[in-house]
Amino acid sequence: MTSKRLIYLPLGGAGEIGMNAYLYGYGAPDKERFILVDLGVTFPDMDGSPGVDLILPDITWLKERADRLDAIFVTHAHEDHVGAVSHFYSDLGAPVYARVFTANIARRKMSERGHPEDAVQTVSAWPEQVTAGPFKVGFLPISHSIPESAALVIDTPDGRVIHSGDFKLDPTPVVGEAFDPDLWAEVCKGSVRALVCDSTNVFSPDPGRSELGLGPAIEELVLGAKGMVVATTFASNVARVKTLAEAGQRAGRSIVLLGRAMERMVEAARETGVLHGFPNTISDEAARDVPRENLMLLVTGSQGERRAASAQLARGKYRGIEMKEGDMFLFSSKTIPGNERGVIRVMNQFSEMGVDVVDDSNGKYHVSGHANRPDIEQLHDIVRPQMVIPMHGEHRHLREHAKLAIARGYQGAVVVNGMMMDLSGNAPSVAEYIETGRTYLDGSVKIGAMDGVVRDRIRMALNGHITVTVILDEKDEPLGEPWCDTSGLAETGRSNALLVEVLEEDLSQYLGRAGNKTLRDDDKLEEALRRTARQTAQAEIGKKPEVTVVISRMR
Amino acid sequence: MTSKRLIYLPLGGAGEIGMNAYLYGYGAPDKERFILVDLGVTFPDMDGSPGVDLILPDITWLKERADRLDAIFVTHAHEDHVGAVSHFYSDLGAPVYARVFTANIARRKMSERGHPEDAVQTVSAWPEQVTAGPFKVGFLPISHSIPESAALVIDTPDGRVIHSGDFKLDPTPVVGEAFDPDLWAEVCKGSVRALVCDSTNVFSPDPGRSELGLGPAIEELVLGAKGMVVATTFASNVARVKTLAEAGQRAGRSIVLLGRAMERMVEAARETGVLHGFPNTISDEAARDVPRENLMLLVTGSQGERRAASAQLARGKYRGIEMKEGDMFLFSSKTIPGNERGVIRVMNQFSEMGVDVVDDSNGKYHVSGHANRPDIEQLHDIVRPQMVIPMHGEHRHLREHAKLAIARGYQGAVVVNGMMMDLSGNAPSVAEYIETGRTYLDGSVKIGAMDGVVRDRIRMALNGHITVTVILDEKDEPLGEPWCDTSGLAETGRSNALLVEVLEEDLSQYLGRAGNKTLRDDDKLEEALRRTARQTAQAEIGKKPEVTVVISRMR
Repeated sequence: MTSKRLIYLPLGGAGEIGMNAYLYGYGAPDKERFILVDLGVTFPDMDGSPGVDLILPDITWLKERADRLDAIFVTHAHEDHVGAVSHFYSDLGAPVYARVFTANIARRKMSERGHPEDAVQTVSAWPEQVTAGPFKVGFLPISHSIPESAALVIDTPDGRVIHSGDFKLDPTPVVGEAFDPDLWAEVCKGSVRALVCDSTNVFSPDPGRSELGLGPAIEELVLGAKGMVVATTFASNVARVKTLAEAGQRAGRSIVLLGRAMERMVEAARETGVLHGFPNTISDEAARDVPRENLMLLVTGSQGERRAASAQLARGKYRGIEMKEGDMFLFSSKTIPGNERGVIRVMNQFSEMGVDVVDDSNGKYHVSGHANRPDIEQLHDIVRPQMVIPMHGEHRHLREHAKLAIARGYQGAVVVNGMMMDLSGNAPSVAEYIETGRTYLDGSVKIGAMDGVVRDRIRMALNGHITVTVILDEKDEPLGEPWCDTSGLAETGRSNALLVEVLEEDLSQYLGRAGNKTLRDDDKLEEALRRTARQTAQAEIGKKPEVTVVISRMR
Repeated sequence: MTSKRLIYLPLGGAGEIGMNAYLYGYGAPDKERFILVDLGVTFPDMDGSPGVDLILPDITWLKERADRLDAIFVTHAHEDHVGAVSHFYSDLGAPVYARVFTANIARRKMSERGHPEDAVQTVSAWPEQVTAGPFKVGFLPISHSIPESAALVIDTPDGRVIHSGDFKLDPTPVVGEAFDPDLWAEVCKGSVRALVCDSTNVFSPDPGRSELGLGPAIEELVLGAKGMVVATTFASNVARVKTLAEAGQRAGRSIVLLGRAMERMVEAARETGVLHGFPNTISDEAARDVPRENLMLLVTGSQGERRAASAQLARGKYRGIEMKEGDMFLFSSKTIPGNERGVIRVMNQFSEMGVDVVDDSNGKYHVSGHANRPDIEQLHDIVRPQMVIPMHGEHRHLREHAKLAIARGYQGAVVVNGMMMDLSGNAPSVAEYIETGRTYLDGSVKIGAMDGVVRDRIRMALNGHITVTVILDEKDEPLGEPWCDTSGLAETGRSNALLVEVLEEDLSQYLGRAGNKTLRDDDKLEEALRRTARQTAQAEIGKKPEVTVVISRMR
């Protein structure tokens, strides 16, 4: 098989929500030219990735073929789409294309990591097209929860592909372009080979709601508030930030932006001209002189993140501002699964201060940025592609979306990370399976998720740790007693003596009866000491700790 | 002040959902006689308590006064109410009273830990009363998501107190007694001093729904299923287990109970006569000979717990049973905040098998066991107490509940763990603040949550660990080079050499320039080596690990 083919290969984002990285290729097998759509991150958690700073897609496969990568296109500025671009810039080297707001954010990230800002090139909305190898790519505006989100129109020798990006169908998105069904119909009026499509809300049965609809309820809430009002949402949801700020302004309150991301996003949106008519803001210093009932703070930390402004306010003062009895805190946001504990912690801390916490449990103060099931169906029918490839979802979302598409008469397939699909035929077919995975940014180093580094940390967290030190003389005889240090273990157990002493006693006894063969062999001795230490710990405290054995020989 | 008083002191459950333990006392200050209502556990998580097996209330204060404790009353058999009874039996020694089903479960726990089963005494429902010191206590039936839940009628020299226990107002609970408003009105017709009341669902605005209402929807779902049907719920929700089993039976399916808790709960409910007419079940061995479309499995693991039947089925075979494409898995349950990741993992694993997962997102397959806001109001108005003391809730629930009670004309107060309240006056007042907290069952040992043991484990999980070993000769001169072991750290960093080698080189250099004063002083040397190791790690890999320094001296 040497004929040219169009391939689609997700390296991230397909089978998970986060870390989006979708590769398209065209050419003869193993000679395809590539473009990459999005290169995002996902966030670590204590359960699976303690101590990790950021999770990036494993792009080993692509790195080895970086000379065939012609461009990277970024659909929008959410971290799970743009966050890894600067981390892999040195590895991939390809030019990065984005619309002006997204490019602004991407450039900030590039320069933070010491890369040239001109690595990111600004592209206008459709009908402008960028030629990248065999591809011509245009940015087709679509609404989402961040300004200037775009679908990509990817023209290939095998026909047009529409990559939806993250989207919702919002006729009144407050900031940025409304969804324009006529423009979309126009672009898709020929035959479209494939729609690669956001699956996030495929289980939400009702049509999505517009950003504009939130204004009145939020205004009513703020008008009714007595003390200081503090509201949080994703900083990148500039439309929401504007809705909140306007509600505050109409209630006669001075607006304060708190938190680095909040300031940066509003600044970027203003710089790039996507945000007009944003109410005047005052600094946090100035805010200290304003009566609290005349203040409205817009803060970062809608997911309860420990270092964000909301969590800091919940713990006490932040930049000289303190919440008090009678103030109100609004979560104009949804809690992402996995973040519940952090959000609930913040809510209870505010409750202890006497602050009234309002969240979106009644559905009045937040709308999703993703298309619900009927909206997904609507997009299918506007694009009328030959095949629908669900992306941006966990496995259950992709499967449901594929079933939906097939039931409605389209070709469809569940394609997860690492499945290289040939899209050139009548239906999508698997060309190859590629090894993919996750790369951890851990401190300043990138490590593979499967390297065992984090696994060892998890084991220490679950089991505790013992260090056993033994010194042997020139004749391989123990010199003095073995020495133990424990970390993360109870001090005393069953026998009521210090655990360390019981360990040292048992290890000493073991050394006393160990044969020369073992004493001479580091590996054997280490294994035996580890086993003895774990047995003693199990008997004393019912745990089997991780053990580091240090054998020093006087030679 | 030597006059006698009635006190209420939550040691757990007030300011959290879980680990319930409510103490009542009557007598002169510091001479009160006590009864304890419930003694439950809460569950550890990787975020805050990695490696911990179970979280128990810290009962140090009560242990020191155990001679004044006359009885323990257990309202119902949920783990957060009964789970710690057997763990503290030796410490407290007081007799335990419960109704027959709860007592059955409590006795199983007692015997598992080697305690006598007759430590638990069975009490009939109201009007039977148990005399315990100055108290007379009766079990007043109320509906909840477990059989035979009871409120307690606590008669004291200062009047009657109603302790609601966990409750909902269900006229048709499927298993166990319906809520009986006439009986409640009768019991509360005199004056009630205090209602200590469940707050869990105070933020849910709609009236609660009955267990009975779920039957038709579940039946319809099971009737429409093609392959094997597997459903999960809390095993202790015997009514739900029955509803599910009956739906399976009507659809012509054989019923299999899978998971130890599921089998045990149904057994306990049958033994104690609270469960009648439960469909016949077959064993998992027998199930292997039944066509899958004729099977319905009821399994443990509604919260995605790794070791429960549902998670095991999601990973592959469990007891010879395997789920397949076209089967259905039903979560007849709500995900408790914090468990989302585990549940979602199970859902996606099933999706990968081609199993259709149905959850309660449409509200058709689960109802809560707790009273919603209007039901709480209804109970207030049936009991008409002088004061409402909210319990069983996080701070935000207690605060909202207290506000609700006060707004409706009752005395009310937010009382959290450790606040000893005097209930003898016209309004509740704080008598004293008691130190409370959490005790971790860690392996076979109980440790205090604040002892630092788990904190050290969390630090190792976040930062990794280095062991530094140094040997000094008789003259306090380093003998050979320092030696490093790392755990949970990247192997190489910035300089591309092995981290261990860079560490050893830097530590060696440090030792070379260290003064005699430092070399002679273990503490100083240890601190200096730790600092050096952390600086090197920071420079190489951008992390500051935990460091164990072992200094051996040849003396």
